Amino acid sequence: MAYVHGYDERANERLDDQARTLLELLHADTAYPPGSRVLEAGCGVGAQTVTLAQRSPDARFISIDVEAESVAAARSRVSRAGVSNVELRQADIFDLPFEEASFDHVFVCFVLEHLSRPVEALGILRRVLRPGGTITVIEGDHGSTYFHPDSAAAHEAIRCQVELQRAAGGDSNIGRRVYPLLVEAGFDAVNVRPLMVYVDASRPELVDGFTRKTFIAMIEGVRGDAIAAGLVTPERFDEGIRDLYRTAEADGTFSYTFFKGVGGR
Amino acid sequence: MAYVHGYDERANERLDDQARTLLELLHADTAYPPGSRVLEAGCGVGAQTVTLAQRSPDARFISIDVEAESVAAARSRVSRAGVSNVELRQADIFDLPFEEASFDHVFVCFVLEHLSRPVEALGILRRVLRPGGTITVIEGDHGSTYFHPDSAAAHEAIRCQVELQRAAGGDSNIGRRVYPLLVEAGFDAVNVRPLMVYVDASRPELVDGFTRKTFIAMIEGVRGDAIAAGLVTPERFDEGIRDLYRTAEADGTFSYTFFKGVGGR
Repeated sequence: MAYVHGYDERANERLDDQARTLLELLHADTAYPPGSRVLEAGCGVGAQTVTLAQRSPDARFISIDVEAESVAAARSRVSRAGVSNVELRQADIFDLPFEEASFDHVFVCFVLEHLSRPVEALGILRRVLRPGGTITVIEGDHGSTYFHPDSAAAHEAIRCQVELQRAAGGDSNIGRRVYPLLVEAGFDAVNVRPLMVYVDASRPELVDGFTRKTFIAMIEGVRGDAIAAGLVTPERFDEGIRDLYRTAEADGTFSYTFFKGVGGR
Repeated sequence: MAYVHGYDERANERLDDQARTLLELLHADTAYPPGSRVLEAGCGVGAQTVTLAQRSPDARFISIDVEAESVAAARSRVSRAGVSNVELRQADIFDLPFEEASFDHVFVCFVLEHLSRPVEALGILRRVLRPGGTITVIEGDHGSTYFHPDSAAAHEAIRCQVELQRAAGGDSNIGRRVYPLLVEAGFDAVNVRPLMVYVDASRPELVDGFTRKTFIAMIEGVRGDAIAAGLVTPERFDEGIRDLYRTAEADGTFSYTFFKGVGGR
């Protein structure tokens, strides 16, 4: 499966610097009771795993990813952080090695955007959840991006990432669909909240940590693939990137929204 | 000056029904100390005036609008609500009949979007503010609108409103500019917060009160002008409106963001 750059990789690079604000925003209200058994499905290189596990030190996490390399990277990250309540395993969401109802909670972050069958994946995750358990889903939405000064070239550069993700079977604008996806997969009492990141010069840690080093870096990461796919010329893409950096100047603003949904079985 | 439909008119129609949630969102953290003298600049028909005055019963409001008819409508609305701490006057922001430093606070809501010289207006308002006083600015941003299911026709219908506002000298996407506008006008300690309205079927009062009766109704209101201006065909506009209503169904979602900024003199 082609893998299009997403927040999981970028968050990886930044975990040790400016990303604290973003992690706080994403995880603020996620904490599991002592003794809970929690499945983190699609942990990637473990960008969220350490934060997740540290916020619920007495819960027990099983974090899985389909890629062996990612699991190895996540394992070493968890180990470096001295976190002991996480077990890492290579496993495929579409072929889970767990019994029905074997988890109290499921956590899924920046995963559904990559899947061509997100509702099917959610249905499988629902089966391994015990009745009364919850699923938490966090996804971004690139179509939620707007900024000042506005720029058609910048929107085109962002659309390159969206088109590549779509060609790979995913949906970079999936944040707005978290509610209907959870409902369609059969979850009850679905509650979705937007987690909006608004950046202006009064928030320098976000200008650097989010606008520049997270969002723009992610879009820059698809330059080669976008040009190779004929989605854009090098000149136009670079113009878009320049215009995105322009929004990080003193009179610029930048907005992006993540969506966090919780549903019950 | 051509007047393009905005939130002020619509809020007017809905004040007595589903708009409470929106008013709460917009005004939640605005309250003025007893004895404060507050200028509400551009009160329109008084859609915000009653809420504003009721939340600060011991402050004294002077609410102005350039249109005599609007002032009359606002006066009767204030009178019907039994609010006694508001004085209404016809006056132009660009030719204010007040001494320098004669107000403790200034409040501006859904006004800058209509002005071709918003920084100049803010500078004039700053002059009538006493040192140490604050200005509060609330504006929407139509470019912050996204929804599920997505629809190019729906975005085109929204762009009609944006284009008409631009042709009239205004900016319907001004919300994202509130920070740089306040800074450029000379205000200190500028702080801007996004006020995001996220709507899904779990929030039926917003599906009806915001998506249908506020936002879509506002876009529908420009149908005649948009077609007359050659911005869109009737068929395409109506397709866009149908697609917007589609986002208010059970599996749809709708997102819109207002921006609220506070600055000091």
